[in-house]
Amino acid sequence: MNTFGRILRMSIFGESHGPYVGVTIDGCPPGITLSINDFILDLGRRKSGARGTTPRLEKDLPNIISGVFNERTTGAPITVLFENTNVRSKDYSNLVKHPRPGHTDFVAMKKYKGFNDYRGGGYFSGRLTLALVTAGVIAKKIVPQINISAKLIEAGGQKDINAAVEKAIEAGDSIGGIIECKAKGLPVGLGNPFFNSVHAVLSHLIFSIPAIKGIEFGAGFAATQMTGSKHNDNLMDENGTTQTNHAGGISGGITNGNELLFRVAVKPTSSISLPQQTYNFETGQVEELIIEGRHDACIALRVPPVIEAATAFVLADFMLIEHQV
Amino acid sequence: MNTFGRILRMSIFGESHGPYVGVTIDGCPPGITLSINDFILDLGRRKSGARGTTPRLEKDLPNIISGVFNERTTGAPITVLFENTNVRSKDYSNLVKHPRPGHTDFVAMKKYKGFNDYRGGGYFSGRLTLALVTAGVIAKKIVPQINISAKLIEAGGQKDINAAVEKAIEAGDSIGGIIECKAKGLPVGLGNPFFNSVHAVLSHLIFSIPAIKGIEFGAGFAATQMTGSKHNDNLMDENGTTQTNHAGGISGGITNGNELLFRVAVKPTSSISLPQQTYNFETGQVEELIIEGRHDACIALRVPPVIEAATAFVLADFMLIEHQV
Amino acid sequence: MNTFGRILRMSIFGESHGPYVGVTIDGCPPGITLSINDFILDLGRRKSGARGTTPRLEKDLPNIISGVFNERTTGAPITVLFENTNVRSKDYSNLVKHPRPGHTDFVAMKKYKGFNDYRGGGYFSGRLTLALVTAGVIAKKIVPQINISAKLIEAGGQKDINAAVEKAIEAGDSIGGIIECKAKGLPVGLGNPFFNSVHAVLSHLIFSIPAIKGIEFGAGFAATQMTGSKHNDNLMDENGTTQTNHAGGISGGITNGNELLFRVAVKPTSSISLPQQTYNFETGQVEELIIEGRHDACIALRVPPVIEAATAFVLADFMLIEHQV
Amino acid sequence: MNTFGRILRMSIFGESHGPYVGVTIDGCPPGITLSINDFILDLGRRKSGARGTTPRLEKDLPNIISGVFNERTTGAPITVLFENTNVRSKDYSNLVKHPRPGHTDFVAMKKYKGFNDYRGGGYFSGRLTLALVTAGVIAKKIVPQINISAKLIEAGGQKDINAAVEKAIEAGDSIGGIIECKAKGLPVGLGNPFFNSVHAVLSHLIFSIPAIKGIEFGAGFAATQMTGSKHNDNLMDENGTTQTNHAGGISGGITNGNELLFRVAVKPTSSISLPQQTYNFETGQVEELIIEGRHDACIALRVPPVIEAATAFVLADFMLIEHQV
Repeated sequence: MNTFGRILRMSIFGESHGPYVGVTIDGCPPGITLSINDFILDLGRRKSGARGTTPRLEKDLPNIISGVFNERTTGAPITVLFENTNVRSKDYSNLVKHPRPGHTDFVAMKKYKGFNDYRGGGYFSGRLTLALVTAGVIAKKIVPQINISAKLIEAGGQKDINAAVEKAIEAGDSIGGIIECKAKGLPVGLGNPFFNSVHAVLSHLIFSIPAIKGIEFGAGFAATQMTGSKHNDNLMDENGTTQTNHAGGISGGITNGNELLFRVAVKPTSSISLPQQTYNFETGQVEELIIEGRHDACIALRVPPVIEAATAFVLADFMLIEHQV
Repeated sequence: MNTFGRILRMSIFGESHGPYVGVTIDGCPPGITLSINDFILDLGRRKSGARGTTPRLEKDLPNIISGVFNERTTGAPITVLFENTNVRSKDYSNLVKHPRPGHTDFVAMKKYKGFNDYRGGGYFSGRLTLALVTAGVIAKKIVPQINISAKLIEAGGQKDINAAVEKAIEAGDSIGGIIECKAKGLPVGLGNPFFNSVHAVLSHLIFSIPAIKGIEFGAGFAATQMTGSKHNDNLMDENGTTQTNHAGGISGGITNGNELLFRVAVKPTSSISLPQQTYNFETGQVEELIIEGRHDACIALRVPPVIEAATAFVLADFMLIEHQV
Repeated sequence: MNTFGRILRMSIFGESHGPYVGVTIDGCPPGITLSINDFILDLGRRKSGARGTTPRLEKDLPNIISGVFNERTTGAPITVLFENTNVRSKDYSNLVKHPRPGHTDFVAMKKYKGFNDYRGGGYFSGRLTLALVTAGVIAKKIVPQINISAKLIEAGGQKDINAAVEKAIEAGDSIGGIIECKAKGLPVGLGNPFFNSVHAVLSHLIFSIPAIKGIEFGAGFAATQMTGSKHNDNLMDENGTTQTNHAGGISGGITNGNELLFRVAVKPTSSISLPQQTYNFETGQVEELIIEGRHDACIALRVPPVIEAATAFVLADFMLIEHQV
Repeated sequence: MNTFGRILRMSIFGESHGPYVGVTIDGCPPGITLSINDFILDLGRRKSGARGTTPRLEKDLPNIISGVFNERTTGAPITVLFENTNVRSKDYSNLVKHPRPGHTDFVAMKKYKGFNDYRGGGYFSGRLTLALVTAGVIAKKIVPQINISAKLIEAGGQKDINAAVEKAIEAGDSIGGIIECKAKGLPVGLGNPFFNSVHAVLSHLIFSIPAIKGIEFGAGFAATQMTGSKHNDNLMDENGTTQTNHAGGISGGITNGNELLFRVAVKPTSSISLPQQTYNFETGQVEELIIEGRHDACIALRVPPVIEAATAFVLADFMLIEHQV
């Protein structure tokens, strides 16, 4: 299943070290202006290069090869390609015999019977999140009335994120973080009870992003420590505005007119410079593994635009289903 | 979307105060023994009646009306009905004019333009989880090699769950809780990268259960406070056994052969005996609302079999996709 | 896959000799009036009893068990059950050892490894078309502006259908027929190019009806004998009205504003009174088989309301997708 | 919906006059050898250039940009691009004001509100069948045990196809034809009753191919003129071999072990050299239209590899579902 969505749908493809990664977005209404400039901001936020992120530098210029005519969407599938230019031709076969902890080397080898493209993680690469960000940019243009903002609010357990990142870099180690996402401007009534609830569909897509290990809506896990009398959001007016927003904007799986609010947990980057002990298939022993090169000390720094994109995509799809576009 | 699943699929229907709630399970292999006795244990665990749960007592006898012949599944869709017998004919119209905080009264009215069956929550009722438990019982029989166990490990923020429940009952209030679920016996390789990852699909179904506000896999939110060197699970042997299980048994969205481990946050029951302040559509004022009758002080007590059922269903579907059945 | 549809979706279940057959319709908008009376006409047209049809008489009273409140749809899944009352408890095990030609006895046994409910065809029974007709009645109410009419225009190769049927009855044999279906009132623009084209989706559902062996749109197979200059439908005005309708109302998979027109081929009923030669699994020989009881001499007589229902369902789904409801 | 399939899935994209057309195939098992040579035969058969086909010559070299590593499939999505090189930069705006009869000009303009890429038919172009043929080549490699063959058996109503084509060319007109497709080597048991029946799914994909106006399985429309005693296929042995094959290899929607057999009707090419009368949106009059350039006099000549591809794709998907690969 490389496809997600119901009316608005995206299909992703590509590998870290293949010629391209790309995405096809189907179901976008016709007539929306779309040019390369629209992608620059979000692709730039996702990019590496900043302190705490890997120095693999890619230009990440989107090449729109279908679905746009005279700078407007046509209603046909939109395919966007990104060239992989900064691919080093080093030997990756070590990943097969000595799988990296926290990485997909082992499961990929097992699942695909050794035929997977293991170079740089292949199809599992975080580079595929380019596809999500691209789909998100288009989704945002479909529902400009919705305002989505995701921020890293904590890294390595600390609010001073820069300090936490520096410390991890110095130690040759890595850290994770918590991202908070808010969406404003949602109508009452998106989503359905049970399987098509907003948080069910949204969490489905959020957990499709590599490195995500948890999600909570509104008060989330803290709600388990509250009483009902404190947790319940009292309605204040005929629009459904509530006094508090412990529900995170969702009641019974349906948007209730308040701000959509959720947080996600991003695990520490799996690649670290410190030596690790892990099983070597060639020797049949647990042995020391050193991963060369430089890595994202805190991949969570690059995840907020991906979270935003996923949120925009899910909300645009619901808006299209509910005829709100 | 009242349907979930890919090869194994369930479709749910019914309302709290209609004649029946039910479920149709499609894609179950033929030849599996199935009789009413198979359902008793899990349906019983979900039932009300215990301390801290509502005294609405239903017999909840499953009536298998299709897909089973000579006490074995036939390969055709299996439909199971549950009669709603203990339905009080009281007046529910108050829910429309004075929506209950934390409940779906307001969003249901808005979304369905006032045509929803509001009695007892209608289609939004937790009574629909009977359908999930039923589907889960069948799923468990499809993959008997997988052992799934969900437990309430904390209520109202406390490990002494009974004490927490008693306190809530006394206060006329309610509490939530944290449920931990483990699944053993999974092969390496279930799931796919990105949209069809095990945790993405599982969280989709888990968030389809009413009252769930968060989910985390393995170390989950605590992972954000760990370094990569501590969080990474080192491989110990050729089967993928890891020294620790911070990943919760999933790497890159794919089962890695270790125990699947996740926790969910259940919010405090929305219905409480204490008076609440909420908007009254008739008077146009925020006014006091008192919800009569007795309620689940801690709905989380009844959720573990539902979590197990959802887990069994998702895993059985993946096992069928991967030809492991 | 017992489910069909995208926004409007139906799930069917039940067996010929089980307690019920039924259907769940999901995605129906709220507020549509719906009562048992709405079903009487189309269910009656599908019923047996007329000359040339089987005398198995069922009351076929629809029992709406969910999704309707105060005689209006609520937006929740609508489940309708039909009791199987006229079920004879005769011995059907002969079907297993001596499969009937033209029937599903052999493939059902093989596919379901002998666990299928073989009584009266089980889940394969034409009785399941009750579910389709039910879904079609609801679909028609969703799009009352569309007028659909299907008629048997030929039976056994003859236009005088009564005569053809009488001849078949006398011979103890059976005949098939051609049904023509027309739909008026369609807007321009339903459907999508390629996989979601109107005729692709419609043929999918039409071929889901037992006994259908062919379908053609507009001029259909006769178009292969025409020149382009004759076959092309010239546009006459700005609404897309064409001089001829050889395309059957569909251009490039999309409704073009003209009448939707197609014909389907219904095969002769498989059950006949004449002796047949077929393989006997018990003796390992090709032997004479006599099928007892009385049968539909021309099942095609009962198929028009099923074709209409399928057409209504597909069109209502497209209308919902295109926000035309 | 630019996506088709359940386990094996394809997503298509591109326009006639855009830079590329392409396809992504998801769900292909890992380890299958795949190189450009595998595509040459079928792409060549689909190509134009022969007598009766358009002289737009494209090299149609497949560029595999993902999912293949070391000349074997990896299990990740396979994307194949085809460059559009032979695109003439002429003015197509006439199609908007004076739509061509038989073409999609009118419906595309209406459906996409004038934003569609109208050059050469845009996304509706027959050039997209390159994507289907590509998917079919991969499908054939997944199920090498199945032998599929489609042939044009009649053109313009005649068996002497060359003569019929010559006559159409001379007249500046076009003709259609009938293609017969056979598939051998199918196991008993592919498909499901009703919505997932082999002929339902197959006809869905076949009608996704431009210019198809009818399909019939086995005896098809001729079955309507047969008696049941003649039409029924008597079983001859324990493998389900039948004496005749009027059912076309499908019983109750399920393969019965005999040859799959169906025929499709291809309409005459819409573009002809003769003048036509059709509505002109600019003048508001029905006026003469002359379509310049040279065209396929008989597009049906190029359709057999597309029919084969569609058949291979559907059968490979069913084989994957049934664990027969």
